[in-house]
Parts: sequence; C-alpha cells; structure tokens
Amino acid sequence: MKIEKEQILSDNKKDIGVHEESFDFLANSLDRKGVDVHKVIKDLSDFQVAIPSWALGAGGTRFGRFSYYGEPANLEQKINDVGILHALTQTAGAISLHIPWDIPEDYKAIKELATANGLVFDAVNSNTFQDQKNAKESYKFGSLSNTSKAVRDQAIAHNNEVIKIGEKLGSKSLTVWLADGSNFPGQHNFQRALQHTQDSLQEIYATLPEDWKLFIEYKPYEPNFYSTVIQDWGTSFMLANACGEKAYTLVDLGHHLPNTNIEQIVSTLMMQGKLGGFHFNDSKYGDDDSTVGSVKPYALFLIFNELVYGMNNNPQNPYPAWMIDASHNIKDPLEDLIQSLEAIQEAYAKALLVDQEQLKLAQEKHDVVLCQEILQQAYRTDVRPLLERARLNVGGALHPIKAYRSLGVRGNLIQARGKHSIATGL
Amino acid sequence: MKIEKEQILSDNKKDIGVHEESFDFLANSLDRKGVDVHKVIKDLSDFQVAIPSWALGAGGTRFGRFSYYGEPANLEQKINDVGILHALTQTAGAISLHIPWDIPEDYKAIKELATANGLVFDAVNSNTFQDQKNAKESYKFGSLSNTSKAVRDQAIAHNNEVIKIGEKLGSKSLTVWLADGSNFPGQHNFQRALQHTQDSLQEIYATLPEDWKLFIEYKPYEPNFYSTVIQDWGTSFMLANACGEKAYTLVDLGHHLPNTNIEQIVSTLMMQGKLGGFHFNDSKYGDDDSTVGSVKPYALFLIFNELVYGMNNNPQNPYPAWMIDASHNIKDPLEDLIQSLEAIQEAYAKALLVDQEQLKLAQEKHDVVLCQEILQQAYRTDVRPLLERARLNVGGALHPIKAYRSLGVRGNLIQARGKHSIATGL
Amino acid sequence: MKIEKEQILSDNKKDIGVHEESFDFLANSLDRKGVDVHKVIKDLSDFQVAIPSWALGAGGTRFGRFSYYGEPANLEQKINDVGILHALTQTAGAISLHIPWDIPEDYKAIKELATANGLVFDAVNSNTFQDQKNAKESYKFGSLSNTSKAVRDQAIAHNNEVIKIGEKLGSKSLTVWLADGSNFPGQHNFQRALQHTQDSLQEIYATLPEDWKLFIEYKPYEPNFYSTVIQDWGTSFMLANACGEKAYTLVDLGHHLPNTNIEQIVSTLMMQGKLGGFHFNDSKYGDDDSTVGSVKPYALFLIFNELVYGMNNNPQNPYPAWMIDASHNIKDPLEDLIQSLEAIQEAYAKALLVDQEQLKLAQEKHDVVLCQEILQQAYRTDVRPLLERARLNVGGALHPIKAYRSLGVRGNLIQARGKHSIATGL
Amino acid sequence: MKIEKEQILSDNKKDIGVHEESFDFLANSLDRKGVDVHKVIKDLSDFQVAIPSWALGAGGTRFGRFSYYGEPANLEQKINDVGILHALTQTAGAISLHIPWDIPEDYKAIKELATANGLVFDAVNSNTFQDQKNAKESYKFGSLSNTSKAVRDQAIAHNNEVIKIGEKLGSKSLTVWLADGSNFPGQHNFQRALQHTQDSLQEIYATLPEDWKLFIEYKPYEPNFYSTVIQDWGTSFMLANACGEKAYTLVDLGHHLPNTNIEQIVSTLMMQGKLGGFHFNDSKYGDDDSTVGSVKPYALFLIFNELVYGMNNNPQNPYPAWMIDASHNIKDPLEDLIQSLEAIQEAYAKALLVDQEQLKLAQEKHDVVLCQEILQQAYRTDVRPLLERARLNVGGALHPIKAYRSLGVRGNLIQARGKHSIATGL
Repeated sequence: MKIEKEQILSDNKKDIGVHEESFDFLANSLDRKGVDVHKVIKDLSDFQVAIPSWALGAGGTRFGRFSYYGEPANLEQKINDVGILHALTQTAGAISLHIPWDIPEDYKAIKELATANGLVFDAVNSNTFQDQKNAKESYKFGSLSNTSKAVRDQAIAHNNEVIKIGEKLGSKSLTVWLADGSNFPGQHNFQRALQHTQDSLQEIYATLPEDWKLFIEYKPYEPNFYSTVIQDWGTSFMLANACGEKAYTLVDLGHHLPNTNIEQIVSTLMMQGKLGGFHFNDSKYGDDDSTVGSVKPYALFLIFNELVYGMNNNPQNPYPAWMIDASHNIKDPLEDLIQSLEAIQEAYAKALLVDQEQLKLAQEKHDVVLCQEILQQAYRTDVRPLLERARLNVGGALHPIKAYRSLGVRGNLIQARGKHSIATGL
Repeated sequence: MKIEKEQILSDNKKDIGVHEESFDFLANSLDRKGVDVHKVIKDLSDFQVAIPSWALGAGGTRFGRFSYYGEPANLEQKINDVGILHALTQTAGAISLHIPWDIPEDYKAIKELATANGLVFDAVNSNTFQDQKNAKESYKFGSLSNTSKAVRDQAIAHNNEVIKIGEKLGSKSLTVWLADGSNFPGQHNFQRALQHTQDSLQEIYATLPEDWKLFIEYKPYEPNFYSTVIQDWGTSFMLANACGEKAYTLVDLGHHLPNTNIEQIVSTLMMQGKLGGFHFNDSKYGDDDSTVGSVKPYALFLIFNELVYGMNNNPQNPYPAWMIDASHNIKDPLEDLIQSLEAIQEAYAKALLVDQEQLKLAQEKHDVVLCQEILQQAYRTDVRPLLERARLNVGGALHPIKAYRSLGVRGNLIQARGKHSIATGL
Repeated sequence: MKIEKEQILSDNKKDIGVHEESFDFLANSLDRKGVDVHKVIKDLSDFQVAIPSWALGAGGTRFGRFSYYGEPANLEQKINDVGILHALTQTAGAISLHIPWDIPEDYKAIKELATANGLVFDAVNSNTFQDQKNAKESYKFGSLSNTSKAVRDQAIAHNNEVIKIGEKLGSKSLTVWLADGSNFPGQHNFQRALQHTQDSLQEIYATLPEDWKLFIEYKPYEPNFYSTVIQDWGTSFMLANACGEKAYTLVDLGHHLPNTNIEQIVSTLMMQGKLGGFHFNDSKYGDDDSTVGSVKPYALFLIFNELVYGMNNNPQNPYPAWMIDASHNIKDPLEDLIQSLEAIQEAYAKALLVDQEQLKLAQEKHDVVLCQEILQQAYRTDVRPLLERARLNVGGALHPIKAYRSLGVRGNLIQARGKHSIATGL
Repeated sequence: MKIEKEQILSDNKKDIGVHEESFDFLANSLDRKGVDVHKVIKDLSDFQVAIPSWALGAGGTRFGRFSYYGEPANLEQKINDVGILHALTQTAGAISLHIPWDIPEDYKAIKELATANGLVFDAVNSNTFQDQKNAKESYKFGSLSNTSKAVRDQAIAHNNEVIKIGEKLGSKSLTVWLADGSNFPGQHNFQRALQHTQDSLQEIYATLPEDWKLFIEYKPYEPNFYSTVIQDWGTSFMLANACGEKAYTLVDLGHHLPNTNIEQIVSTLMMQGKLGGFHFNDSKYGDDDSTVGSVKPYALFLIFNELVYGMNNNPQNPYPAWMIDASHNIKDPLEDLIQSLEAIQEAYAKALLVDQEQLKLAQEKHDVVLCQEILQQAYRTDVRPLLERARLNVGGALHPIKAYRSLGVRGNLIQARGKHSIATGL
C-alpha cells in the first residue's frame, strides 16, 4: 500500500481553514517577539528521523507479546511502512537496518524501493546479543568482550559484514549496541572485559570506510542485571577516544539510571565533539521504550534545548544521526511512530523558540527566575500550527494520525498482507 | 508594604491589548471544541492555594543557607508577604502556620491583618522534629513513635496545643508531618514504633474539634535515612482509618521513591474518600522542594487530571486542602512562589480541558493511541490567556512576575525591613 | 534420574571431618552466648521452600533466551528436578504449579510421583498475562481489570479452574499475580480498573474452598510501563481486606521501586495479620529475578529478621508460604536454585541468632550503636556449619553444589532427556 | 583525654582467651585453603584510613541538628579525638583537614600533637560551598564554575591557600569537592560552567607542588537539585585528564545515582590509573552519609574486591587515599567512626580472602555458578578474629567499641570539655 500525495492533499482540505487561522495567529505573535518563523519552519522540515526496521512490528516483554495485525513480513514491506510514515509526516525520511534480520536479497531493488518512498539508509545495526541458527560460537556470555578469542572474532567479523552490507545501501555509519555484561558479581573481570571490548572495537574501527562513523551505545543494565561492559557515557566516550576521530558516543534516552540529567550529558558530549547519534523513546522506570514524549515531554524539550545549542555553537560536533528506538507493545506500531515523530518535532520547535540571547544575559546575572521564565515561555507555546505548516509545505498531512485513520491504512495493510503476518526480528 | 488594586490595574494596562487578542483567539478555539470557557475561568478563580509561613524566607540545605534580603522577620510581615502574593495572583488566599515558629501574640490583630489581605488560615502544622529551647524531652529519637511515654506525651500535648491555636485563628485542620524513623537497621522495632504512632495519633484525634480534619503525611526517608515510621500512602491510609472519618492522608509531591506513579495514588485515595490535603512542589532526585512545575510539568498535569476527575466523581472525598511546600534556596521566595502558583494553575487549567467523555469512550475501546491524544491535546494547549483572564477578572496582575518587578516589591521590602532581616523558622 | 540417599551419604564422607570440626567450634561458641543450637538446626530443617514449576528451564529477557541442556520437557520431569533439589538440600519440599503450563493429565500418578520425591503441592498460580491458543478473549489490555466484562469473566473462570486443579493436588492456596496495568497516561481510568479488579477478586474469593488462602501480589511496573493496577502493598492490602479474612498480600522481593524498605513492609503486614506469601529472588535494578542473596544478602537478612520476629510475635498472621521466584538466564537452573536455597537458609539462620531480648533493651534505651552491633554480630557469624548440620541430620548433602557436580546430575539429565529438550512455559 | 597503651592492654585481657581460640581455629582453616594468614594480617595492619576533622561533631540535616555532648571545640581537640580512635583501632592513623574550619594557629604545635597521637595529615579539603564572613564574593551561584571572574578568582585563591596550609602540615594532596551546579533548568549554560570549571582547576593545578596530587570529586546532586557541574565519574575523569598526570578522580560512595555499579567504576578508574582517593560511607537513598557497612556490606566487599585487584594488578594507579566521609546525626561520633573502621577492615579482609587464581579460571570457563561461590566463600567467612589479631599485634583494642565504653571515654570528654561544647564547622 502506498499513500499518494493527492490522498493527503484531499484529506487536508477539511482542516485547512482552522490551521491557517491558528498559524497566522501564532506566526504574528512569534513575529512580534522577534522569532524568524520561516527559519523555524525550515528547520522543522529539514529534520529527518530514521525509523529502525525492527520497530514496525509489535514489540513485547519477557512475559510475552501480543501481535498486531498486518505486520510487515519482509524488508520490502518494512520499507513500505516507513514510506507511509514519511508520506504522512514528512519527517521520517530514513530507515535503519538491523542485521541479520534485514539482509537484502536484491540490493538494487531495495535501494530503488527506498528511493521511491523518499527514504535513505541511515546507520546499520549489528546484532551480537542473540545466537543465529548455525552460528559456530554463542554470545551467551558476551561477544566483543568475551574471554574467548573465537567468540570475539566471530562478533568482529559480523560487524565487518554489517559494514559491507551498509556500504552497498549507502549507509554511512555503524551502530554498535553491546549487550555484553554480567548477571552476577564475580562473573566478569571488569578490566579484562573492558580491554577485550576496546580491542574488538578497534579492530572493527580499522575496517570502517573513510567517510563512515562508528556509534558506540551505552546502557547501565538489561539484558544483563549486574553489570554492563559499556555502562555509561563515560565508558563509551573513553572507548570512542581509544578508537579514533570517526568513533562517537550514541545516546539512547532509555539507557540511564533513575534521575540521570541526560541533557547535561548531551551538552558535554557536543562540547567534546563526540555526540554521534541519538535514539528517541521515553520511559518512566527503566528502558521502557515507550512512545517519545508520552511520559516526560519537558525533559525531551530540555534535551532539545541542548541539541539546538550544540548544533549552533559546536562546530566540532558532527550533525547527529537521529533514530526512534521504541517498542510498540500495545499500539498500532505505525500510529505509535507517528505520535513519536510528532513529539520529537514539538520538542524541537519549542527549543527553537528559546531566546538564547536573553537566556545568556539572565544566566550571567544569575537571574534564575528569568532563566526559568525564558525556557517556560518557549515550552508553554502551542507550536502545533508550526508543525502543521512544516508538513503542509512539503506535502505531508496536517494531522497525521487522523489522516492515517481516515485513509484506512491499517485495514489496507491487513488486506494486503493478511491478519497474522508477523514482522521478522525479535 | 501593600500593593494597591490601582497599582496592578495601571500596570496591567500596557499588556491588556495583547491579552485580549490572545484570549479571544483561544476562547473561540476552545468554544468550537465544546469547552465551557467561562466555567474554566471560574474554576481557576475559585482555586486558592495556601502559602506556608515558613516558605517566605530563604531555604537551605545541610550544607548551608544563603540569605535573601528583606525577609519577613515576624508573623505580621509573613502575612503581608502572602498578601502581596495574593494581590498579584489572586490564587494565594490562605496562609498555613507552623507552630511554634509562628505563634500569634495578639490573635485579634493577626486575624484582622489576614482579613485585610484577603487571607484565611488554612491547616496548622505541628513540629516534633526539632527540640525547642527549654523543652523537657528531646525528639532526637522520635516523637509520637518514641519508646518513651514521656516523649510521646509531650508530642501529643504539643499537637493539642497547635489545634487550640488553630481554633483561635479559624483553621479547620491539623497537618501532622512525622519525621520519626530510624537511621540504622535494628534501631527501631517497626511494629512497636507503628503501634505507638497509631496510639498517639488516636489521642490527638480524640481532641480534634467536630468540624476539623486531621491530615497525616507520609514520606519514605529524610531526615531519617533507613526507615520512616509513616513511609508510604499505605501506612498513612491505615493510620487514618484507625483514627476515624475525620482523619485523612496528605500527599506531598516530593515524598515518594523514584518513579512512583503519584497520580495513581491520588486517584486511589479519592476513590476511598481519604485524600485530605496536598502539598505542591517539584523534584528531580529526592524531596528537593523545587518550584512547582519546574522539573516535571506533565506529571503535574496528570495529577491534576486525577484531581479534577475525583472532584467531579468522588463525592465521598472532601474538597482537598492545597498548599505549596517548597524551599527557596536561591530565588527570591516571593518570585519563586509566583512561579509555583502559575504552574499549579496551568496544570489545573489544562486538566479542565481534558475531554472526559471522549476519554472514557476511548478507554472502553482500548484505543490507547486516542487516549494519549486526548490528554496531549489538552496539555499542548497554551492556556496562559485563561490564567490571565482569571486573574484579570478579580483584580490580579496579568503577568505577576513582571508586575512584582515593575512595582519594585523586593526593593520596598528591603527598605522597610532592612537588608539582613531573617525569617523565623528553620 | 533420581538421587539415592546412599549416593549423598557416600559423597558426604570426604568432607565430614572438616564439617564436624567447624560445627563443634561454632556450636560451642554459640552455646557460650546462650544460643539454643539444636533449636536453630530444627528450625532450619523445618523450613521448606516451594520451587515453581516454571523455574526449571532457562529464563530469558525480551532480547532472547539461551537454552540450557536437558531441560524438563513435561510436568513429570519438572517434579523429578525438584526431587533432585530436595534430595540434595532437604529444604525444597514443595512444588508450585503454573496453570495452564502444567496441567496434570493423570492426577493420581502426578501425586504419587510428588510423594515419592518427598514433595507436596504448594500454591497454584493462574496466568492471565498471556493469551492461550484458542482463547476467546485476549488479555492484551488486561484481565481482571479489563473494561470488557467478557474478558473479566474469562479471567475469573480461569482462576476458578486453577483452584479446582489445585484441589485435586492438595494445594491450599491460589496466587494471583496480575500483570494488568497501562503503558500510557490516559489508557486506564485508575478507579474503574481498580473497581473491576476488586469485583473480580471477590468473585474468585467466593469460590475459594474453606481451608484455602488467596494471595494477591503487587508490582510497580513491568510488563506495563506506566501503571500497574496493584502497584504496591497498600493496594494489595486494601484488596485483601475487601475480599475477606482468607485473602492475603504476597510479597515478591523484586516487585518494589528503587530503595524501598521492604523489611518494614513485611513487618507491617505481619502486624496486621496479612502477610500470606513470599517470593524470594534478588535484584540490583528492577525485577531482575536474580539468584537469592547474590546482590543484597544483608537486606535479605534484615527481612528475615522481621519474618522471625513476626513468626514469634504475631499469632494473628498465618505461617507464610515460601517460594523462590527467580529466572535462570545463564546458570544451570538447578545449580542456581541450590544457590538460592543456600542463601535463604543462611539469612534465616543468621536471623535466628539475633539476640531479641538484648535488642529490645537497646532499642528502648536508644542505644543505636548497640542495636547495630547486635544485628551485625549475628550477621557476621559464619553459619555454614549450621546449614550443613541441618541437611546432614535429614540425609541431605553437606555441600549441595559440589554433590550435584560430583554426581554428574546435569550430564545424566541430558543423557536421559536429550540436549535440546525445552521446558514448557514461557 | 588520651588513652594509654596500658589501659588497652589491660582491657584486652578479659577477652584474650576467646580471641586466641577463635583466631587459631580460623587461621588453621584458612591455612588449609592456602591463605597466607600472616600476609592478610599485615595488610590489615598497614591499612590506614583518614578521619576528616568535620566528622567529630554531630551532623545534621536541613531539618536541624541534635548536638552530642563533649564535642571537640577546636583543632587540638579534634586531633585528640582522632588519636583516641587510632589508639583503639590502630587503623585511623591520619587526619584530613577542612579549610577554613580548621586553620592551625601554631603549625609546629599542631604537628607535634598529631605526631604524639601517631597521626599524619592526609589530603586537605577546600570549601567553596559556603560564604565565609567578610568574604568579598558569594558562592551562592557557584565558585569555580561561576560566570563571574571575580568569584572564580576568589575560589581559586582559596584553593591555593589551602595548598599552602597543607604544605606546612605535610599533606600531599588537595581534595576539591565542588558543590557548583544549578537548581533549575536554564540556570546554567552547561558548557560554559564546565569550561570555567576546567579553566579554574587548571589554574589550581598549576600551583600544585611537584609531589602533590589533586583529587576531583563528583556528585550527581545536592546541594543543587537540577544539575551538578561535575555530575559523574566521566566528567571528573575528563577534567583530571585535562589537568594533568597529578590530577585524579575521587570516588565517594554516596555520590551516585540509584543502583549505580560503583565497583565497576572503581575498576575502570584503576585500569586507567586515575583513582586517586576514596571516601567511605553508606547509604540507602541518597548521599545519606551513614556508617560504613551499615546498609550494604556486600556492595562494600565487592568494591574492595576491585580495590584489592587493582592494587595488585594496576601499577599505573597510585596507592589511593582513604577517608571516611560520614555524618553522625544520632550516634556518638567516635563510636560511629569505630563501627565504620571495623566495617572497612572487614570488607578488606574478606576481599583479601578471594581466591583470585581460581576466580580467573572460573571466569574464563564461564562457570558463573563457581564465580559466585568463590566470592561468597570469602564473604561468608567470619573474619573478626583476623581484625582482632591485626589490632592486637600493634597495641589496639580487641573490641574497640567495648573498650571505648569500658574506658568511659565519652564521659571523660564531657568532663574535660563541658557538655555543650560544639564542634566547629557545619
């Protein structure tokens, strides 16, 4: 199923009047405050977030999984799903593949399909947390950090293969999420595990094409419940430095201990030129992988405030790779992703409204009350008309969820794929 | 120093045009969605939050305290400060006294002063976490829970005295925050401590005037760092039930373990008819007592969503007593309180916009996506024009912080009281 | 495979000399301090912990599962596995079944097999967190709390069926762990969900046989990540009271928010006569279900200190049902369970050594230093000789893990069942 | 008051028989397992922990402070108190001064007094979290990170002065705990605050004597409740690297977010040669500063396991500076410190018993069960006889708390100093 521009155009018509009224009002109001509204809308339009291939089917927990109907059963269908998202939101213009779940059979056809959907291939992701059928070595006790050289070599070889697949698709980065760790005190010699990991990453890094980047994730726990080899940004940063200038830290919002000040980590990494990538989701307890912005939208805004600051003030940091990494346990995955994309753009738009000049002055004068006012003035603004306009300008839907439903997308997918089609992957 | 209506009126003039424009636009937009805007504004105007007498001076931590200039040095000045807040915001129409820090000398004069400032006396608060000069017994090892009968009796007598003081002022409730607990495993016999506490509370309850309520706070830790006698809502609820129908649980937002779902606790207590009072503040780590809404405004909105639901659907629950319980370590306390009041009204206004009918239908159909949309539609609305109108209607300031500054309030207070005036209390 | 008494006896011989020496030394030393060593050993021998039928295969996470070799493929083999545990440790004399994973086909044969292994059937467990094949209604959006009456009725009927199965086996209690909750704000009307849950539990309770107990678990999150209907002990306690005197709260160690004082909850519940059951495991982050005592052995000791106190001082509380509820992701499940059983007995033995008389005096005098000394004196004692003696007296292994390995148990199981035998259940 | 060797010798006599019996039994048993008992005892005797000058009076919380009787009123008395601790425990052979609370008037006399008490001067600590009387600039909004150059310069000058005082006393290191941070989003520009801090630390570092070390603490929150400039080990490590090879990270056990794996941080820092110092305490919730080992003794053991490993395997890391940094809110500070010292030595002794050879083999074979057994075998050993012997060998008390009480130390101090003597400092 593909959504045609005309369908969206036609669907938008019924709400266009209300939109224009509210947009004009907001634009006037922002204009009076000195905001360059066109610049904001352009920034919003330019902002593209990658969708991971594994996020298009229903997710689950260790207690089970409730399937969704009409899930994409192969890579082609996954690309089509992202195409639908992008047609509606105009902000999901990339797909991020997980290997070995999504190895293309016909690279040319896959690339053409992506292009037809307006998509590029973002970072490729390796998987050394599960054993593949017929694998010689098991990752039960770790991969890049394993005490066994044979296991480490297999994991390194896999990453190198992932890079090769990515090259054929036009990807420019490899994301390594290392599940390695230990479940019990004593299981790991922390230093040996860290040394093995550094050595393994350096071997992978050595094969990285000249114009690629290596993203190193960190996470404090899960699936290991006593220790994780790359437990925090400090460890990831240390490893990235040990690899070289093409290696970066990747921040996943859910990968932090309770109460962590994530926006400060983001700020520090950008200052050091080492923030390579970003995974969006939300959480109340652990790595819940909930819809972006569904639990802590103000924290997301504060993070975007640092991202905007860094993008404007830290030329030493490359433009980060954006991706949604959420799990869709009970919602229609596509609707869930639309809500996430909306929340990301909302936070970004509000961050763009922060008066950085005034904020700097208030900070210098220690006018803490005013500092807070400045952030809250931006945050309290209803920016939905800006998001609508940004979509409208490039052919997207005024109200993506409404359009998704009125166009009967899920029903069409079920008809095309069958009710019990199941997404490959986890 | 007293702020005259005319001063505010005059100060409002410069912004009235922008306000009217934005209010009209918003009112129209809400009207179209079926919102009764006048009802919302009335609810906002009716909502009055008590200011505790100890919140008007600078707060501190165990590492010290940085004074603010022009702090109120006695009860009269504290009442004047709350009067200023109320004049500007029209939502701080009550004061909550802490005994023994604020025992009136001349009750009649104090009551007249309060009335002149448009204030009533809300819950009175006892203090059994500090030793008073010349006290016979020490609370070092607890008060109502102490193994020593003499200590318990002293603490009970103090609470009874606080009730008597409150009666003279027109208060109708007693708030008991019990700091009792233990710092080390083994220090307390949990069962004996709980039994003593229950017995002591029952003794206090027995002296409660017919039309009074007893509010029992809970808190998991601090100032004790191993256990607290009333560690959670379950314990408070159990004790309230053991006392009788005039005893209630009081929820202080900062008194919870990391990640607690506070809105659910609020909902359960209202369903059981046992939510008596509410202390507002915000926090990122522990009982940080930060400005309301400065860290987790969405959580505050979700809590208000439950409060609004309960006020509309739980006749078994009395109208709760509202109070701000924050600590003003680095901001001007009055500005800090204005920001808190603004954040409370904002959350309340947004909660009033939730379409409860539609939400119920979506919940019944398990349309989780729509449930989220409904809440977020309300939350994303910029309700500042509603707050402005609610204040304007009753003589308050359009922009209280701006008015506070343009009227030079702090400067006047310093002039009147001296720079190094220090608030009584902690 | 069955372990014969003679095998154990013979295996014990090589270490018996060292054991006797260390036991005599310890017994003398304890005797001097006034400890009744024989009583302690008898208490240890009497202490029996149920093994859940689902814990005998390898566990996993949402990221996958690494199988163990020789897993029990049916109920008979699961009983045999528990029989092996009990033969070695003499402290695992019960099995707790999970329905529908372990519905017996031939009740008589299953009961005889259990008896032959020295086992009784402890609490039966219902499952309404997964959909069974051919189920009419889905639990995707909850079971006992569902807005749909049809779903609730199916869940109630299932629980009633579980009771019937339990009756045929001689079980005397039903454990309800309710995964119900919501993943997003707005998804649930908390009050309706709670009301439905209470009504459903009351219906189940109404069919409970006279001599049975109902255990109600609580858990703050997972598999739902915004709210859980029975989020804490307070809610479980409220529901148990609403059901009646045969309904109790069940405490699972892993089901708490960070930093919760669990021992105090245990103490409060016993004081109220409402602690029905107990699930052992350990955790560092969330509901990690790690080996008991592997992360926080002192906390376990403090909990046992309250359990021992309650068993001696709270006749209003029934003798609790004990069960291990851990997940064995990377260890041999049987070895993992042996380590858990050892840790439980160690904590129990140390708690039995606490000088309660002296502790009470120290508490009354507020001698906090001495209170801590008394607990630490007990905790620092090396009680392994007591555990050995308790096992030895009734035919168990001196060193269960060593015996398990020297008897080649896992190898025999693999030979008998095949390497890739997989446990039924999750 | 000074404790004479003879007093201790005489007090030890009554328990010497029991000690010898238990020591012989344990030594035999360890000997059989291949442990070099004499080496362990020597390591224990060599281990010396500094006592901070501010820990000798009663601590408190923001809710108040309950004084202890006979507190040391000046630096001389503080040194005497540490002398008492050292006489009894023989493991507190150093004192760590806090400037400006403890500036000596007569350096020569102070040094002689310390020597007479067997004490050396460990790291000196600067204070830029409080304003001193007559200070020109205020630290209310930060010190080394302040936007104001004048404030930063004052803070740098203070640190340089602290170094000079330390030089006169024979200290060889400066500890910087930076309370700087922000209470509200927006208050700080994270990057500017970090840059200022780095610049300031580099200025201080530039004046550091050749044979000195600079220790940089980190802490996630308190006294600031939104952000801390040096929030975690990663930031401290980055700053230490930016300063130079004499700059190190200092780990304080209480300065971590909930559930942090601290032992892994210790291990990583030693591997990088950057663990400079260590502050001991314990906590259940936040930076509770409780008695060492009173809450999580197993975690302390796991940390010592890494420290022992690092001291044996990481020549790149200097021997760390040890200090107790606890707050004594309700216990006699001296008794509290004795309990802390005992807990430290216990954890150290147990870590020394870990069979590192066997552990390495088990780790390489992924024998997770055995890894756990090896740690637990060491941990479950009752090492009290080793600690007693280590003290006995060098003239300390068999049972320091008992001796402290039987010698009537506190009574003597009260008699000498008066009941209401108050310690200088916080």
